[in-house]
Amino acid sequence: MKKSIGAKTIIYPTPVLVVGTYDKSGKPNVMTAAWGGICCSIPPSVAVSLRKATYTFDNIIEQKAFTINIPSISHVKEADYFGIATGKTTDKFSATGLTPVKSDKVNAPYVKEFPFNLECKVIHLFEIGLHTQFIGEIVDIKVDENILSKTEQPDIEKIKPFLYDPGSSSYYGIGEYIGKAFSIGEVFGIK
Amino acid sequence: MKKSIGAKTIIYPTPVLVVGTYDKSGKPNVMTAAWGGICCSIPPSVAVSLRKATYTFDNIIEQKAFTINIPSISHVKEADYFGIATGKTTDKFSATGLTPVKSDKVNAPYVKEFPFNLECKVIHLFEIGLHTQFIGEIVDIKVDENILSKTEQPDIEKIKPFLYDPGSSSYYGIGEYIGKAFSIGEVFGIK
Repeated sequence: MKKSIGAKTIIYPTPVLVVGTYDKSGKPNVMTAAWGGICCSIPPSVAVSLRKATYTFDNIIEQKAFTINIPSISHVKEADYFGIATGKTTDKFSATGLTPVKSDKVNAPYVKEFPFNLECKVIHLFEIGLHTQFIGEIVDIKVDENILSKTEQPDIEKIKPFLYDPGSSSYYGIGEYIGKAFSIGEVFGIK
Repeated sequence: MKKSIGAKTIIYPTPVLVVGTYDKSGKPNVMTAAWGGICCSIPPSVAVSLRKATYTFDNIIEQKAFTINIPSISHVKEADYFGIATGKTTDKFSATGLTPVKSDKVNAPYVKEFPFNLECKVIHLFEIGLHTQFIGEIVDIKVDENILSKTEQPDIEKIKPFLYDPGSSSYYGIGEYIGKAFSIGEVFGIK
């Protein structure tokens, strides 16, 4: 029996995206966002939704660039802090001891200690409501060498990312391998 | 030491969103998409990116409505099949034995056997490139009663959703509880 729980902003899973930007004076900032994800294959693009009130919003408008950094479980406290504190009054890198590194391809800093870093240039801005969606073309990804498999592919089991559960405002790890996509469903027959 | 792996469509995690629609004759269809997520809090909205070539694309244009259905691990094969087969030549509900149910609030079917179902009306369509992004206002969520906690909140550990890893084209489960968001980061001090 289905039950209505009303209009809520819940899906499973949502990501933990740490958005890196410079302000107009060049000060690096990071904030954590869960409303976002890959949104296009060609050009390879990622969407992230931000409220206008955030420091990061103004920084992206100014620089037309941002990074998306995927933290490992070992940095869950830092990632959570980046979603609580504001860059308006805080230097979040100094507070946590993490290291901003100027991206190679865009004018935005990535978080050195996080293993997976997307460098993005803004190609669209879409107004939705309380949140505005920035669409960033992914121009490069930088990764820690030790998260690559023997075939040089990024390995989720080495990255150890985590996810955000909007239903309980909690973080969860990544679980066990279940199966191969575009494959295990073939049992139902493909015409 | 960071290494460049080029411009790829990878973040961790991405969701497994099963999109339910009716075609113009009223035939229900479902397809699986990983490029999407919550994109706005007010109005509560979800984004899903689709290629124009999909059957679902035309259906959403026609009906201005869709559902997002979150499958449990027990239906991973069905969800994978929904991303392989096309509604142009297949009745995916018949092929899998799953049940379409007309949504209460919008003209789109949800998947009865999947525990978490969002009913969405289209409020924006954004062209990005190969993919077009549909923004759906979440007008209601229907859930199986047995996935609710004692306080009537949806419980991720009862839903048992899974995620898609674009790096390896694989599915993974949800792991262990790590901690409370907007809380565990306070160790760094909040001004």
